[in-house]
Amino acid sequence: MAVKTIQWKNDRVVMLDQRLLPHKEAYRVCRDYQEVAQAIREMVIRGAPAIGVAAAMGVALGAAKAQVKTFDRDFERIFLNLSKTRPTAVNLFWALERMRKIYTVNRSRGVDVVKRLLKDEAQAIYKEDIAANKQFGKFGAQVLRNARHLMTHCNAGALATAGYGTALGVIRALKEAGREFDVFVNETRPFLQGARLTAWELKKEKIPATLITDSMAGYLMQMGKVDAVVVGCDRVAANGDVANKIGTYTIAVLAKRHGIPFYVAGPTSSIDLNCPSGKEIPIEQRDAKEVSHIFGKALAPKGIKVFNPAFDVTSQELISAIVTEKGVIQPPYQQNIRNHVGH
Amino acid sequence: MAVKTIQWKNDRVVMLDQRLLPHKEAYRVCRDYQEVAQAIREMVIRGAPAIGVAAAMGVALGAAKAQVKTFDRDFERIFLNLSKTRPTAVNLFWALERMRKIYTVNRSRGVDVVKRLLKDEAQAIYKEDIAANKQFGKFGAQVLRNARHLMTHCNAGALATAGYGTALGVIRALKEAGREFDVFVNETRPFLQGARLTAWELKKEKIPATLITDSMAGYLMQMGKVDAVVVGCDRVAANGDVANKIGTYTIAVLAKRHGIPFYVAGPTSSIDLNCPSGKEIPIEQRDAKEVSHIFGKALAPKGIKVFNPAFDVTSQELISAIVTEKGVIQPPYQQNIRNHVGH
Repeated sequence: MAVKTIQWKNDRVVMLDQRLLPHKEAYRVCRDYQEVAQAIREMVIRGAPAIGVAAAMGVALGAAKAQVKTFDRDFERIFLNLSKTRPTAVNLFWALERMRKIYTVNRSRGVDVVKRLLKDEAQAIYKEDIAANKQFGKFGAQVLRNARHLMTHCNAGALATAGYGTALGVIRALKEAGREFDVFVNETRPFLQGARLTAWELKKEKIPATLITDSMAGYLMQMGKVDAVVVGCDRVAANGDVANKIGTYTIAVLAKRHGIPFYVAGPTSSIDLNCPSGKEIPIEQRDAKEVSHIFGKALAPKGIKVFNPAFDVTSQELISAIVTEKGVIQPPYQQNIRNHVGH
Repeated sequence: MAVKTIQWKNDRVVMLDQRLLPHKEAYRVCRDYQEVAQAIREMVIRGAPAIGVAAAMGVALGAAKAQVKTFDRDFERIFLNLSKTRPTAVNLFWALERMRKIYTVNRSRGVDVVKRLLKDEAQAIYKEDIAANKQFGKFGAQVLRNARHLMTHCNAGALATAGYGTALGVIRALKEAGREFDVFVNETRPFLQGARLTAWELKKEKIPATLITDSMAGYLMQMGKVDAVVVGCDRVAANGDVANKIGTYTIAVLAKRHGIPFYVAGPTSSIDLNCPSGKEIPIEQRDAKEVSHIFGKALAPKGIKVFNPAFDVTSQELISAIVTEKGVIQPPYQQNIRNHVGH
């Protein structure tokens, strides 16, 4: 059964509420663009490609409800509101720019036409994302053909995309190719996307998975128990530096020390040629309570100061290859990324 | 106010129940050696030096209650029972051996004398531990004199010892020397000794502390925000390899990459010359529920496989110096550790 991460249904955006997994499969129905923005901010939906799809649907939803008289002002407000939800994943801005282009190019054809075309575009972004996932699944499965023991961080699965997944898309493709392997799942504190989401997806797919805390990855590598690491990405800079969930950098440093290949999987919409390097990627700082509390209960003494960066940057020299729907990018990245996206 | 980790009181062993911190300061009263063994196994008390003290008090308590007729058989049973509680920290076995020596040397003087001497020895181990902590606090503060931003992993504080602490002993000594500094506290999954215990101790001492997840250490180092790392140890092998709380190895690898000094603090009772290297140190595997559940509630889907090693080994080449109550051991460790302990 496919996971229904996000859907457009009768002029509503319906999302699986990922904060409730693995305990409960409940859906959040967004009736206007503000509700979509809120859902993105609160991480009801998360994962770079899924955030892109949600933002596109948010624009379409907002536009659908906008009045003819105030359409242009409303469009700008919708756009601005959604663009402020989360700063790191570039897919959000990429999707918004695609929506703006539809608006700009077709504005002269009238509000009703624009509204219809925005809906079509959001649907196209949704469908293209699933198709891209399946594409790099194939490429990734080829890259990983000799790995028996994989490790992944965070959730780059069907839940992080329109469906199928990036890193987990590669893992699904390996399964479909009949390979035998197992996966170490880093729990991924503080939001526990590994424990809650990736473990849940792998279990549904009957792929053997072992849950560990993030702090155990080094031990497993030291013991020779990991053949390859595969993760998703929130933004790839022009030089190949990759922003991804906090803790990814640490896993990459450990993999390098142990001579374990470290792969990044993501759609070309995650590549940002306007960012020369990881230094220019904005890193979101989130609420202290995500670190200091679990299930509403404090883990630490009251009033403790907390630092909560949601992402980190993995330097390009730690990355063995980047897999997209167009194929596999090898180092040196500076030149190869440009060639890959056709610039 | 000093933390009362463990005390001998009217032929009872009284321990602060560390599993309830930081929410509740409650004490567990152990009336016989089995209750002491259970408290060690369940981590009511934890931390290598504290486990040593608890085991010694457990022997004294068991002996005090043993009958004259069955004293020798009882002693062996007490000894065996306590020795099986936790495998990694060598202080447990070191303390038990000290107690056995008292028994062996004085057995001919009669059961009552042995009982009294065992009590005295447990008390001596307790007092020596506090004295040792204060000693290497001084040495450590000297080593760390130029560090403004420290990082520590797990809890190597008053709670992990008879009092004052090893790594936190060094930090306390820095404070007493009037230095200005702050401490990044790794939460230390799965048992959260950093979030629950270290943050609690530092708060009591009014030492500025910031809580992070273990996965954030790499990011902080990358940002240049960490000047030095200081941790405790559960066992130091003859070559300088150090077993400590799971995740320590990862922090050491990150520190090395960023040129940040990485210090280990512990009493000489943590040094095990019978272990040629870290490879020979047994690593405790603990219950899956410590990883899969928090506050009794599942973090992950039901039935997920879990791996839960409680410790890892940091290779000696990643360690800048080892601080004990006798001074500072610099590399090369193979020779210097032997000289240090006088072998």
